[in-house]
Amino acid sequence: MTRSLPELAVDALGGDRAPEALVAGSLRALRQLPDLRVILVGEPERLEPLLDRASGLGQRLRLEPAQGAISMDAHPARATRSQPRASINVAVELVAAGQADACFSAGNSGAAMAAALTRLRRQEAVARPAIGTPFPNRLGGTTLLVDAGAQVDCRAEWLADFARLGCQYARMALGVAEPKVGLLSNGEEPTKGNALVQAAHERLGALQLDYRGPVEPRGLLSGEVDVVVADGFVGNIALKSAEGVAEVILAALRDEARSDLRSRLGAALLLPALRRLGRRLDWRQVGAAPLLGVRGLVFIGHGRSDAGAVSSALTVAAAAVRSGLAATLRPQPARAGAGA
Amino acid sequence: MTRSLPELAVDALGGDRAPEALVAGSLRALRQLPDLRVILVGEPERLEPLLDRASGLGQRLRLEPAQGAISMDAHPARATRSQPRASINVAVELVAAGQADACFSAGNSGAAMAAALTRLRRQEAVARPAIGTPFPNRLGGTTLLVDAGAQVDCRAEWLADFARLGCQYARMALGVAEPKVGLLSNGEEPTKGNALVQAAHERLGALQLDYRGPVEPRGLLSGEVDVVVADGFVGNIALKSAEGVAEVILAALRDEARSDLRSRLGAALLLPALRRLGRRLDWRQVGAAPLLGVRGLVFIGHGRSDAGAVSSALTVAAAAVRSGLAATLRPQPARAGAGA
Repeated sequence: MTRSLPELAVDALGGDRAPEALVAGSLRALRQLPDLRVILVGEPERLEPLLDRASGLGQRLRLEPAQGAISMDAHPARATRSQPRASINVAVELVAAGQADACFSAGNSGAAMAAALTRLRRQEAVARPAIGTPFPNRLGGTTLLVDAGAQVDCRAEWLADFARLGCQYARMALGVAEPKVGLLSNGEEPTKGNALVQAAHERLGALQLDYRGPVEPRGLLSGEVDVVVADGFVGNIALKSAEGVAEVILAALRDEARSDLRSRLGAALLLPALRRLGRRLDWRQVGAAPLLGVRGLVFIGHGRSDAGAVSSALTVAAAAVRSGLAATLRPQPARAGAGA
Repeated sequence: MTRSLPELAVDALGGDRAPEALVAGSLRALRQLPDLRVILVGEPERLEPLLDRASGLGQRLRLEPAQGAISMDAHPARATRSQPRASINVAVELVAAGQADACFSAGNSGAAMAAALTRLRRQEAVARPAIGTPFPNRLGGTTLLVDAGAQVDCRAEWLADFARLGCQYARMALGVAEPKVGLLSNGEEPTKGNALVQAAHERLGALQLDYRGPVEPRGLLSGEVDVVVADGFVGNIALKSAEGVAEVILAALRDEARSDLRSRLGAALLLPALRRLGRRLDWRQVGAAPLLGVRGLVFIGHGRSDAGAVSSALTVAAAAVRSGLAATLRPQPARAGAGA
């Protein structure tokens, strides 16, 4: 089932720092992963000038033409229809056609979802797709939040789908043999939670999964569970609260560390430790969120992704491909040159 | 309207560190605020041994007998009915009877709400009460989250009430002349949000308030608004995500700072700055969340509140009383000795 040469389509026009960060991140990933192949999707005249450092990669890097990007504030479904040759659409089509094993976009995430739904379609018995966002947890592993923002008004049965999809991803792409599942709530007692959480609690308990019950938001970071299931609105609020606080704390730490000579000296000595801390907390280190519930591997990244974030995302995507997940989701037609 | 001598009833039996932290925090507040008066509510035989350092406070401190506390995991409404002489019930009754201007509890917050609803009752034209949780924001002020957990399945019109109540509190107790209001959402664009947020957006726009539209969770910390309105389930998830991340970052910082000699030396030099940072982020520095929508001032604190947190909470409560808010919510009968 596993592929030896993961080939990834990269939406080179999506994201705040496109196309530079997407191209630079792809080149970095290609250098780090000798078996990786990348298809940069975008306008060749914009991409080619950025490829002067691509020598030596040979056939491992190629361009696929596309016409413009879907802007970050465009209406996702409408824009994917009205811009059929937009870079995200072309990138997803490469996955649908079996020319790429997975694709990555740091652009409009709603548009990536719309492109995946129309070009790859939903998996059987999945009512709604979801976004899985990986959190680096305190045990050194990854806890996946599903849904992190795709479905903002969920039914309890969709949350049961999210649990199944999250476990499938955790088992294959993250290598967790028996993923533990929690349900995001405002308390661990069964009397807590809103009406949706209480209904979902019943359904999750009936699944053939290692369901551990409701977890508070700290369960995203503690490592007590591998998959945290949530309504997409609530999941997105949890994600953005966590990001917001992390930003404020790190900014406040920088302020305080500059406040006087003694602090500046201390901060200079502590710098390597602070850098390690930053890496442990940095969303770029995990960097790629899979769309779950569609018949193919599509990853989305933060709009602000820089070259490091892109490179990290492609590493995650390549690992998911190597796990055999891409083939499970979408048995691929034989591909000319796939083993070349 | 303002009272010169705020008199606060303290639920001395509520919270993980009761009664010691409640008594010690009350004594600290009494020493810091020369005009403060405190009524410690609890079993006299448990409290009196803790009062050996209370000399010199004279009539500014007194005990009010109560029989036991409502435990943290008890069902709030049921327990407040079955334990009528529990400390939280007695503390709220002192407010209802005009013998205290406000009360504070670090115990079961649902029980505090139940006690407030039965003994003080709802304000007119308020469908549901809410918890207002203060966040220290980056501008050095306070942003109030309403609701932080009282109502987990809200209607849009309740969120409009939360906005009015939050503004009333911000105007009087926090001294913000024209509070700016935001609606907690997963994005600032009007196309974002779930069905409840979209319905609430319409209603908030129709109020005579300075409504600034949807805000992401970072709006709780940025200072861009003074009041953030949310469904209580979502608000509690945002609050607990923020707390969870702050804990993880500070723990990781401690780990890293101890990892080698250079880091330990740097951390020692940086210690005063780190302590300032800790104070800026510490929930104990704000420490008291008002119950909004009831006819009297009831504050709740974190179950883990230590003496510093209690002292800080009483300072917040005393300021709210001095602002005249207690009198606005509940015109008090004349009180013997109020001016003594």
